[in-house]
Amino acid sequence: MELHLFTFDLALVWLDLAGVFFFAVSGSLLAAKKQFDIIGSLLLASLVSLGGGVIRDIVINAGPPAAFTNPVYLVPPLLAAVLVYFLFSSIQRFTSLLTLFDAGGLALFCITGTLKALAAGLNPVAAILLGVTTAVGGGLLRDITANEIPTLFNARDLYALPAFTGAALTALLWNIGVFNGVTAGVIAAWVFAFRVVAWRWGWRVPLAVRGWHRAGVSPGADSRGRD
Amino acid sequence: MELHLFTFDLALVWLDLAGVFFFAVSGSLLAAKKQFDIIGSLLLASLVSLGGGVIRDIVINAGPPAAFTNPVYLVPPLLAAVLVYFLFSSIQRFTSLLTLFDAGGLALFCITGTLKALAAGLNPVAAILLGVTTAVGGGLLRDITANEIPTLFNARDLYALPAFTGAALTALLWNIGVFNGVTAGVIAAWVFAFRVVAWRWGWRVPLAVRGWHRAGVSPGADSRGRD
Amino acid sequence: MELHLFTFDLALVWLDLAGVFFFAVSGSLLAAKKQFDIIGSLLLASLVSLGGGVIRDIVINAGPPAAFTNPVYLVPPLLAAVLVYFLFSSIQRFTSLLTLFDAGGLALFCITGTLKALAAGLNPVAAILLGVTTAVGGGLLRDITANEIPTLFNARDLYALPAFTGAALTALLWNIGVFNGVTAGVIAAWVFAFRVVAWRWGWRVPLAVRGWHRAGVSPGADSRGRD
Repeated sequence: MELHLFTFDLALVWLDLAGVFFFAVSGSLLAAKKQFDIIGSLLLASLVSLGGGVIRDIVINAGPPAAFTNPVYLVPPLLAAVLVYFLFSSIQRFTSLLTLFDAGGLALFCITGTLKALAAGLNPVAAILLGVTTAVGGGLLRDITANEIPTLFNARDLYALPAFTGAALTALLWNIGVFNGVTAGVIAAWVFAFRVVAWRWGWRVPLAVRGWHRAGVSPGADSRGRD
Repeated sequence: MELHLFTFDLALVWLDLAGVFFFAVSGSLLAAKKQFDIIGSLLLASLVSLGGGVIRDIVINAGPPAAFTNPVYLVPPLLAAVLVYFLFSSIQRFTSLLTLFDAGGLALFCITGTLKALAAGLNPVAAILLGVTTAVGGGLLRDITANEIPTLFNARDLYALPAFTGAALTALLWNIGVFNGVTAGVIAAWVFAFRVVAWRWGWRVPLAVRGWHRAGVSPGADSRGRD
Repeated sequence: MELHLFTFDLALVWLDLAGVFFFAVSGSLLAAKKQFDIIGSLLLASLVSLGGGVIRDIVINAGPPAAFTNPVYLVPPLLAAVLVYFLFSSIQRFTSLLTLFDAGGLALFCITGTLKALAAGLNPVAAILLGVTTAVGGGLLRDITANEIPTLFNARDLYALPAFTGAALTALLWNIGVFNGVTAGVIAAWVFAFRVVAWRWGWRVPLAVRGWHRAGVSPGADSRGRD
C-alpha cells in the first residue's frame, strides 16, 4: 500500500461519518413517519447509524466500538434529529426521502466496513461479509425496532446486492493496490445508483422457490402471511 | 477515589443484581400477560434482565460477560419467574406493575452501567452512553421479542430521558469524587421518581417533526401506521 | 481427556457445520413461506444458521467469530438457499419441514455451543447457558426478523427445554470424561426426538401464572394480545 496512513485514516473517518449521517437521517425520518417523539427520533437515528458499525467493531474484536469511544460519532445523529425536526414538517414523501438517505448510508458503509475489516487483518471473504453486514445491519435494526417489514428481506427491493458488489469491489481494488479516494468515490456512486435505480424501476430477483408466481406478492401480505 | 475497592465492587454487584431482579420481574409479567408458559417466562425474564448487561460487557470488551461467568446472575430471573407464577394469578393491572418494576431496573442500571464503563477506563461521554444503553437495552429486547411497541420509542412515554439524567449525574459525581452509597441512592430515587411521575402524569416531549398535531397519536396507531 | 485433539476439533467443526446446514434450511424455508426473494432466502439462512454461533463466539471473546474468519461456514447457507429454490416448489407443509430441520440444528448446536464454551475455559454453568443460547439464538433471530411469534416463547411449543437437557448432558459427560462421538450422537438423537415428539404430541408446561386457563390460548391470539 502506498497510502499515507494518516490521511487515509482521516479520510476513512470522514467517509464513515458521512455514512452515519445518511443512516441517521433515515432513522429520524422513519421516527417522524411513525410519530415518535423527538427523543425517539434521536434514539432511532443513533441505533440505525451506529448499530451496524458497533456490530462490525464487536466482530473485529479490537477494543470498545468507535461509536462509544469517539464522541464525534454522536454528532451526526444529533444533527439528523434536529434537521428532521425543523425541516420536514411539510413533507409528504417520507418513503422516497428515507430510501435516498438510506442508499447513501449503504453506499458508504459497505466501503468503510470492508476497509476496517481488511485493516484489522481479516481475510478478503470475511472482510466482504463484514462490509455487507455493516451496511445492512443498521437498516435491519431500524426496521425490526420500528416493527416494519425489513427492507433487506422485502422481495420488492434489491438491497443487499448493491452492498455486496460495493464490498467486493472494495476488497478487490484494495488487494490489487488501486484503492484510493477516486476509486472509493466511484464505488460509492455505483452502489448508490444501483440501489436507487433498482428501487425506482422495481428490479427484482427470483423468489426463494422456483416457479412460484409473484401474483400473491403484495405490500402488507408478502411478509406477514401467517398460514 | 477514596472508596474501599472491595466494598465498592461488592456494593456494585448488589446494585446490579437488584436491577437484574426488577427487570426480570418485568419480563415475567409481560410473559404472563402474553400467556407464555413458565419456561417462556424464565427465558424472557433472563433476556430482559441480563441482555442490557451482556451488551454492556461485550462493548467494554473485557472478557466474557458477567451474566455468563458468574452464576449468581441466574438467581434473579429464576426468582422472578417463580414469584410471578405463584403470586400474580389474581392481578389485573399488569401494565402498571410492569412499569414500576421496569422503572426500578432502569434506575439501577443507568447507574451500574455508567460505573462499570468508567471503571473500565472509558471516557465520561462513552460511559454515559453505555449507561443509557445498558438501562434501555434490556427493555428494548423485551419489547421487540414480545412483538410490542418498544416503550423506548413510544411517544406517550418518557423513558430514555430519566435514564440519561441518571447516567449523567453518575458520571458527574464520580468525576468530582462525591459518588458514594448515599448519592447513588439519591440518583436511583430521582430516576425512578422521574420515570414513574412522567408516566403517571403523561408528560411528553415534542414529536419528531415540528408543528405536527398530536391528534393522530393514539395507542396502537402511533407506531404501527403503515402509510 | 483422552481425546485426540486434532480429530476432536475436526469432528466439532463437522458437527457445527451440520447444525449450521439444518438451521440454514429452516431459514430458507421460512423465507419461501414468506415469499422473500432468493437473496432474502440466502440472507435469512445465513442469519439463522450463523447468528447463534456469532453470539456465542462474541460472548466467549476469543477473537473474531468463526463464521467470519472461516469461509467454509458460508457453504451451508448457500447450499440451503439453492436446495430450497430447486426442490421445494411443490411442497405444502412448510411448517412441519421447518420444525424438523430446526430441531436438527437445535440438537447439534446445544452440543457444539456447550463444547466450545468448555474448551474456552468457562465454568460448566456458563457453558450450559451458552450452549442453550447458541441453540435457541439463531431461531430467535429468524422469528424476530421475519416478524413471527418466536417459537422460543410460544406456549404451544417445548423448545428451550430439549436444548437445555442436551447442553446439561454434554457438560456432565465432558466433566466425567465420557464425552465422545458415540455419546454425542446419543445426546443429539435425544434432543431431536424430545423436541419433535413434544411438538407432534403437543406436550406443554404450565403457563407463566398459576391457575390460568389455557382456553384463551389460541394461535395468533396468545402472543399478540394487546390489552
